[in-house]
Parts: sequence; C-alpha cells; structure tokens
Amino acid sequence: MSVTAPLGFRAAGVPAGLKTSGDPDVAVVVNDGPQASAAAVFTSNRCKANPVLWSEQAIKSGTARVLVVNSGGANCYTGPEGFATTHRTAELAADLLGVAPIEVQVASTGLIGMLNDREALLSGVRAAVAALDGDGGPAAARAIMTTDTRPKEAVVDGAGYTIGAMAKGAGMLAPSLATMIVVLTTDAVLTPEQCDTVLRHATSRSFDRLDSDGCQSTNDTVLLMASGASGVEPCVDELSKQLEALCREVALQLLSDAEGADHDIAIDVCGAASEDDALEVGRAVSRSALFKTAIYGRDPNWGRILASVGTTQAAFDPADLDVAINGVWVCRESGPGEPRERVDLTSRAVTVTIDLKAGDAAATIWTNDLTQAYVHENSAYSS
Amino acid sequence: MSVTAPLGFRAAGVPAGLKTSGDPDVAVVVNDGPQASAAAVFTSNRCKANPVLWSEQAIKSGTARVLVVNSGGANCYTGPEGFATTHRTAELAADLLGVAPIEVQVASTGLIGMLNDREALLSGVRAAVAALDGDGGPAAARAIMTTDTRPKEAVVDGAGYTIGAMAKGAGMLAPSLATMIVVLTTDAVLTPEQCDTVLRHATSRSFDRLDSDGCQSTNDTVLLMASGASGVEPCVDELSKQLEALCREVALQLLSDAEGADHDIAIDVCGAASEDDALEVGRAVSRSALFKTAIYGRDPNWGRILASVGTTQAAFDPADLDVAINGVWVCRESGPGEPRERVDLTSRAVTVTIDLKAGDAAATIWTNDLTQAYVHENSAYSS
Repeated sequence: MSVTAPLGFRAAGVPAGLKTSGDPDVAVVVNDGPQASAAAVFTSNRCKANPVLWSEQAIKSGTARVLVVNSGGANCYTGPEGFATTHRTAELAADLLGVAPIEVQVASTGLIGMLNDREALLSGVRAAVAALDGDGGPAAARAIMTTDTRPKEAVVDGAGYTIGAMAKGAGMLAPSLATMIVVLTTDAVLTPEQCDTVLRHATSRSFDRLDSDGCQSTNDTVLLMASGASGVEPCVDELSKQLEALCREVALQLLSDAEGADHDIAIDVCGAASEDDALEVGRAVSRSALFKTAIYGRDPNWGRILASVGTTQAAFDPADLDVAINGVWVCRESGPGEPRERVDLTSRAVTVTIDLKAGDAAATIWTNDLTQAYVHENSAYSS
Repeated sequence: MSVTAPLGFRAAGVPAGLKTSGDPDVAVVVNDGPQASAAAVFTSNRCKANPVLWSEQAIKSGTARVLVVNSGGANCYTGPEGFATTHRTAELAADLLGVAPIEVQVASTGLIGMLNDREALLSGVRAAVAALDGDGGPAAARAIMTTDTRPKEAVVDGAGYTIGAMAKGAGMLAPSLATMIVVLTTDAVLTPEQCDTVLRHATSRSFDRLDSDGCQSTNDTVLLMASGASGVEPCVDELSKQLEALCREVALQLLSDAEGADHDIAIDVCGAASEDDALEVGRAVSRSALFKTAIYGRDPNWGRILASVGTTQAAFDPADLDVAINGVWVCRESGPGEPRERVDLTSRAVTVTIDLKAGDAAATIWTNDLTQAYVHENSAYSS
C-alpha cells in the first residue's frame, strides 16, 4: 500500500509516453487532509534539476497537497524551457485538484540534459488525477521507477497512526542524497515544523549514509506529507524513531537494487572520537574503487581499507587500527591478524568493522561493491 | 638511460626472488657525487608504509647518496618487523657503499599487508651493489615495475647539465601522489634547499594533478638526487621549468599505462576564479564513476560532468556553464549545445573542457576512464 497506507491519501500511476517502453511514468499523490503539513530535503548538488528548483521554493510554505512525479526524463540542464514545463505541471495539477500551485511539489527522474515532452507529461497528469485512488500507492510506486528492477515500498504502524513510503533509485546513490525520490506519508497530526525536524533527523541517519557509487544526483528529493487524518497527535520522539527506521529500511531497499552490484556492504566504524570521525572514515572507505573491486573479487583486502582510512583527518593512531571483515579480525594493530582465508565473502551481505580505538562513537555507512556489471550498465546506456 | 643519464650516477636492477615471477625486483641507485643534495616528497596518506616512515626521517638531512627500491612487496602494515627490514636494508647498503645509513633512501612497492623476505631482499641489495654500472638506469627502471606493462624513463638536457627520471605506477594514481615511485637525478649543482623547492613545484603541477582512480597509496615517493658532477650551477628557474616538464612527461607515461584504462582524459578547467577552484572542479569530475564509465562507453554525457561540477564549492553560476568534449561544445549555458553526435570518442586521448565563466584561472587534471578491465584487474588479483 505504501504511500496510500495512511488515511487521507490517494495516488495513481499511469503511462504518458515519456518512457519509450510504454511503462507507467507519471505518478500523482494527493493529500486530502484535513491537514497538509509537509517538509522536504533536496540534493545539495549546486547544479539542480528544474523540478528541484521549483519544489525547494514551494515547500517553504510548509504545505504540500499534491505531488507529481515523472520518470522518463529528469528535466535537468534544460534551461528556462525546462523550468516552464515544471511550472506548467504544477499549475495544471493545482487547477485539476483545486489547490494553489505553490501547494504542488514536482519531482522528475530519468535522463538528464533532455527536455521532456511537455504535452505528454501534462496529459499524464490529467490521466493520473482521473485515476486517483485510495489504493493507488503501488501503481504510483511503479510509475516512478527508472533503472530500478523492482518498486520500493514500506509501511510502519505507529500508535494510532501509520507512515507509508515509496522510493526509486538504483545508482548515483551518494551522501546528501542520491538519485532517489522518496515519498513519505503519514496520517499523524504534525505541524510543518515537526515534519521538518523528524524528516531531517531521519534522512541524516539513513539516506545520507548511503554511498553506492560516490555520485551525487541533481534531482534527489525526499518529501514528507502529513494529512492528520488519523486525528492522533503522536509522541514526536517515537514517530521520529519510527520514521528513521522506515527510512533506513527504504535506504537498504535502494542499496540492494543498486545497478550491477553483487554485494551490499555495511561499513561499521567504531571506537571513534566522534560520530563525525566515524562518518568520515566510513565514507572514505565507501569511496575506494580498490576496496570495492576487492569485495567484488571476494578478496578480504584489509590493506586497501587501511589505505582509505589513512586519507582521513579522523583521530586514530596509524599503527594501531583493527579491521574485521564479516567478523574475522584480519587486521590487528595495523598489521596482519587472523588468517584472511577464514573470511567468507560468498553472501551478498558484507560487514566491515573498523575500530579506530580513539573513543566511543560509532556510525555505519552502506555501500556496494564495484563490479563489471556496474561499468557495463553505466557505459552502455546513457542516464 | 634514465637515472644514469646525468654524470655521477650508477644503478643496477637484479632479481632477488621477491617476485614469484623471478623478474628483477631490487634496484639500487648511487650518487657518486661530488655532491649529494637531495629532496623528496612522500604520500600524504597517514597510514604510511615502513620505507616511507624511514625515508621521511632520513631525507631531513638534505642528503641522499644511495636509493634502494624493491618491488614484490610494499612492506606496508607490517609493523615493527617490517620497519626493521627497512632499517636493515639501509644499514647494509650503507656498509657496502661506505656511507651513513641516514644517507640511504629506501622505497618499496607491491602487495601491502605482507612481510618481505628479509634475507632475499638483503641478498638482492648485495647483488645490485655488485652490479652497479654507469649504464644501469634501464635495468633499475625494469626492477621497480609491478603491474606496469613497460618501464617508464625520461631524460631532459639542460644548459650543461642533464636530468634523468625513472618511475613505476599503474594504478592507485591519485593526487598527493599515487602508488608511484619516481626517481629524478641531475648532475647540476644544487643545494638541498634548491632541490626541495624545484621538486615541490614540479610535483604539485604534475603528479599531484594525476587522478587515475581516486585511491591514494601508502608508499608514494618522489626523490630528487643532485650529484653536481657537471660542475654547472644552473639557472634555477630554468631547471625548475625543465623538471616540471619532465615530471609531466613521466606522469603521462604513468597515466597511459594505468590498469585497464581505455582512455587518457585531460580535464581542462578554464574561466575559473582561482587555480584552486579549477583544480577542485577538475578533481571532482575525475572522481565521478559515472563520468568515467560514460567515456569508456564513448558516450559524451555532459550531464554527468555538470552533476560533478555541482558538488564543488568553486565560483560559478549553475545556470551558465559551458562544456566541450574533444572540442565540441555539447553543453552551452548549462543546457544542450552542439549535437553530441559530433563528438568522436574512439581515440585514446580525450579532452574535456569546462568553462566556469568566473575568471581567468585554469588548470588541468588527468585521469582515466573506468572500464570492465579495471574492475577485473583489481578484483581478480590482490595488490
């Protein structure tokens, strides 16, 4: 049910001809209220797509009643014409649904540097609005897919309220978001400020810790819409934890569908002097092409891990680092530890543990291995 | 002739059994003077190999009469035992050649996290010292190779003096040096301070601008030794320019032999507000796996270039960037420019030009494409 699991939401996904495959490519999500509190976080890339430029401004109202997402074209680096397409999309959806354009969020995904067919997109918006349904979440989740092999949906039940999620993303997954579009809905009663607080907390501890290939996208959007339809004023701390867990679940769904990946890798950094140190170390390792190819080759190459740790400014003694791969401490005191032959890298899930021995802080970064299939997918097809 | 082209140098390269292939793996270079001025730059990785830990201290004397390099094992993350091996190597070479151990530089390359066979290495030092020859440069250049497919050598003639170079490196090429060992020799009369100045200038504008795969090595060493044997006191400015040109030539030799690469890519950033801005932008693009796979796929995907530029803090207007690939301005004002079909990416050399339109500064970063062969070489073999 994803985004339509909470009360007060309808959704639809329809084909509009933006994808040459004929697959669904326009999704609309509507919040029927009674409330329309919302918050969003966007890519920190300075070269942003047109829908991000629009939605960043629109969300400042703290309100979003409608979301339009299209796949089949990112509307990025398309200049004033592209911005006009986004604006026209918001206007049309607003007209059809009787809301103000500023209450419409727009997101796009697909190839960048290419104008979308405006008339096809607008026809898709009309068709999607006509198809809106209280059970439309799965159709919407399918319409936002690009190179995803499967739709991503999740739901969590709170004390008298529900939070739903749908997402797309299968590459360019990098901190400060990734080519991902994530839509979160809840029927809890929340103010826009509460939406903003819980959303930023959850994304900073989930999507921001996902680094599939180090490439930061131009279109990333994570939107939270609250309808208040349950009538329940939640314990915000509890809802915040649930939202974080939900975002983490969705992030791992994105990771496990990353283009061409053979392994999902959790890099657990412990013994750090601060959480920032742990994150810096985890990110450095997750960015190492040599580490990522080694995991693909099922080679427990801890030397490449230490070489990455050494590029950071985190507090540690270079002569006293411990590293475990899938629980085998192959590196002790920056030298050989247990025999590397004990490490089994056949399963998809891999855990690397790095003990900096400099404090009590810890953090986890998630990444994938670097495979020949990744190179193939990203060299053979434009995206 | 490489490092033995200048007067006052002898060299040798011999097999010592460190490489399982039986290929030469120990090189010795001796400066017979009359002077022994020297300077070196090392990896900025905090997790350094044992020979780097030794040589960093030894070079503080401003003097180096002997260099011992072994391939077949990096002596990195090998703890106190590994450091003792390096120390013993310096002591033995010093004994055999009648110099102080502090005048001996040691460098190692090969697999990390593995102790070298100390006795094999010391036997190799003895054999290499016995084989020292005024024409030994090419043999030394061959003995320092690891995954290199060919030795790297270069010579430049100055006004009455000569500068020679040998190098190894074929991966992990990243700024602040790369798994590279570069040995520069000259018979010009130079003080240690002059050596240091010209070396730092040359490396900052050559090896530091090479970023093959973003991975920073643990063993990088660039050493300059000056014998003064020509008796010529050079114009230091002129020598500095010649050394820079020589280092650039060697850097491009390393680039063109990078593991698994199909394309050598020059990223020319112009119109920058500062050289630092140009470098930041060039490095960001050179680190993008999506850009690098696109070039491998002969896809002039300028959108991925803009997405990388957008991750930097350089001064520019995100809506007004121009990008050319091999001279075709495929992106104008951050939107589509000339038809991408005009770009020919069949040749190995690729030039990407990014005009930030924010000033007059410029810089070039060199990188490679990301290929399936790179993934294969770095996943199938430990290094």
